[in-house]
Amino acid sequence: MSNTQTAATAAAAAPPLNREEMKGASGEGGLTLEELKEKMAIFAKERDWDQFHSPRNLLLALVGEVGELSEIFQWKGEVPRGLPDWEEQEKLHLGEELSDVLLYLIRLSDICGIDLGEAALRKIELNAIKYPINLCKGSSRKHNRIKTIPDDAATTSNDNGGV
Amino acid sequence: MSNTQTAATAAAAAPPLNREEMKGASGEGGLTLEELKEKMAIFAKERDWDQFHSPRNLLLALVGEVGELSEIFQWKGEVPRGLPDWEEQEKLHLGEELSDVLLYLIRLSDICGIDLGEAALRKIELNAIKYPINLCKGSSRKHNRIKTIPDDAATTSNDNGGV
Amino acid sequence: MSNTQTAATAAAAAPPLNREEMKGASGEGGLTLEELKEKMAIFAKERDWDQFHSPRNLLLALVGEVGELSEIFQWKGEVPRGLPDWEEQEKLHLGEELSDVLLYLIRLSDICGIDLGEAALRKIELNAIKYPINLCKGSSRKHNRIKTIPDDAATTSNDNGGV
Amino acid sequence: MSNTQTAATAAAAAPPLNREEMKGASGEGGLTLEELKEKMAIFAKERDWDQFHSPRNLLLALVGEVGELSEIFQWKGEVPRGLPDWEEQEKLHLGEELSDVLLYLIRLSDICGIDLGEAALRKIELNAIKYPINLCKGSSRKHNRIKTIPDDAATTSNDNGGV
Repeated sequence: MSNTQTAATAAAAAPPLNREEMKGASGEGGLTLEELKEKMAIFAKERDWDQFHSPRNLLLALVGEVGELSEIFQWKGEVPRGLPDWEEQEKLHLGEELSDVLLYLIRLSDICGIDLGEAALRKIELNAIKYPINLCKGSSRKHNRIKTIPDDAATTSNDNGGV
Repeated sequence: MSNTQTAATAAAAAPPLNREEMKGASGEGGLTLEELKEKMAIFAKERDWDQFHSPRNLLLALVGEVGELSEIFQWKGEVPRGLPDWEEQEKLHLGEELSDVLLYLIRLSDICGIDLGEAALRKIELNAIKYPINLCKGSSRKHNRIKTIPDDAATTSNDNGGV
Repeated sequence: MSNTQTAATAAAAAPPLNREEMKGASGEGGLTLEELKEKMAIFAKERDWDQFHSPRNLLLALVGEVGELSEIFQWKGEVPRGLPDWEEQEKLHLGEELSDVLLYLIRLSDICGIDLGEAALRKIELNAIKYPINLCKGSSRKHNRIKTIPDDAATTSNDNGGV
Repeated sequence: MSNTQTAATAAAAAPPLNREEMKGASGEGGLTLEELKEKMAIFAKERDWDQFHSPRNLLLALVGEVGELSEIFQWKGEVPRGLPDWEEQEKLHLGEELSDVLLYLIRLSDICGIDLGEAALRKIELNAIKYPINLCKGSSRKHNRIKTIPDDAATTSNDNGGV
């Protein structure tokens, strides 16, 4: 999103989503990846957009959204957790860009035939094997030699600052 | 992931995840964003990694993973939906890179104090307003003037290929 | 660039640059990286923008521009070399986004104290060592096991499609 | 680049490039974009790699390299200009990743039929029109409403931190 009038603006002006309704949509336990996948599939089908949703088209669209996400942070220098100084509208905008990345990621996974939820759980398991708590805890020097959670179980690559 | 021996290799060698267990972990309705967020938070806390998980650190880590995802597709030319010609191991690898992006995205959202599930539902609603079915359906010319699902409700920007 | 009225539009309306003048600016042999670096430094200094040009700010700005570059290609499917079917304005827009990436890359290198020209020449030499002509030529199978030009001389990483 | 043994390692071990030779190669005025373009074209031709260098393949390869560049910075927090605390080898590695991005960018431009040098000069001119010195200088508030040098002449988009 790069326009002066952002969706965040529209969202701020619009009536708030009914939280109960959202809960209703996603069940007791919260929103699932599966639900989002289905919503996206229906959305595309209704608009006859499947023809445009090839893997590499979606991947480039995802890259585009990551670029828009980066633009939000680009001139800020380091920002503290929780973004205490951000205006509400800026947080709404951030939520939109994070969502855009998520939605394309889920759509890309679906189009590629990947079960993203299953893959994510497996990856967390692999990461737990790769980064044993007793080896990884506490030392920043060790952190500098090890990559972090969502990284590759077998890689030994990032000597320069993996956490 | 860029190493010759990938986590995919490890995953292929490892016993398969117990699907029932996974279902158990995520309840009847599938894996939720909330569950993944909590798993990531515990993972980081156990390793004392919260100190490294600042918003911009996580954002750059996300960009790194998007790069690794892109590398999988970079020399292939266009690939068909469902990736019918890919070897099983290559799909496992793809699942890992998609997961890496997802996990950092969820972690980044959490650290920024954004409810990603709520934001995603809101974004889908905004997209539905922005891309009315009757206006968007069918015509590729119209698709060329309109951006696709996970895009911005208020942007009119991408004249050059928005779907 | 994501606005409906792009700089490409402005460029199309503006008088063409004087090619001789440009040659004059960059000498007989064409535009150098050094000249671009100096132009950028002056530009920032005149506007008192050095304060914003920290390494990570510039890196995120670069990522933002790569996103905008990707948006140009995102819904097109495969496009042939030379972009024979693109309108002149679309090519102007593409030139702008390519330039944005280049200019931030040069600025980032400068701010980090890296001599980009020297680094690039060295990288080409390393690539020549890594990809000997007789081993790399001709076979697509070999290409699938080897990464391409601007890649890392020592990496053996990308089994999945390195050229 | 993500391997433990990086090209930086190889470069450190190798004899230094002959600076005079490099100057010789690039003439009095320094290395030109044109020279790099020609080197890349010869490199690809010698290895029969033109077949792999389609626009979108190269674009995804570029994204991959931007990811590797980001990995260098991802766990560091803010880093000062000039990178005073970085080890020599880390700077060599950074130079390689910056070069990888540059070389793919130049190759992508060439394959698309874009004269990158001409486009970059034009973009700087457009930026100078867009960001008049007297309007942009000094005030960070103004900077927050204006995007920076390599940005789009016509965009008014980034309300959230454009410099």
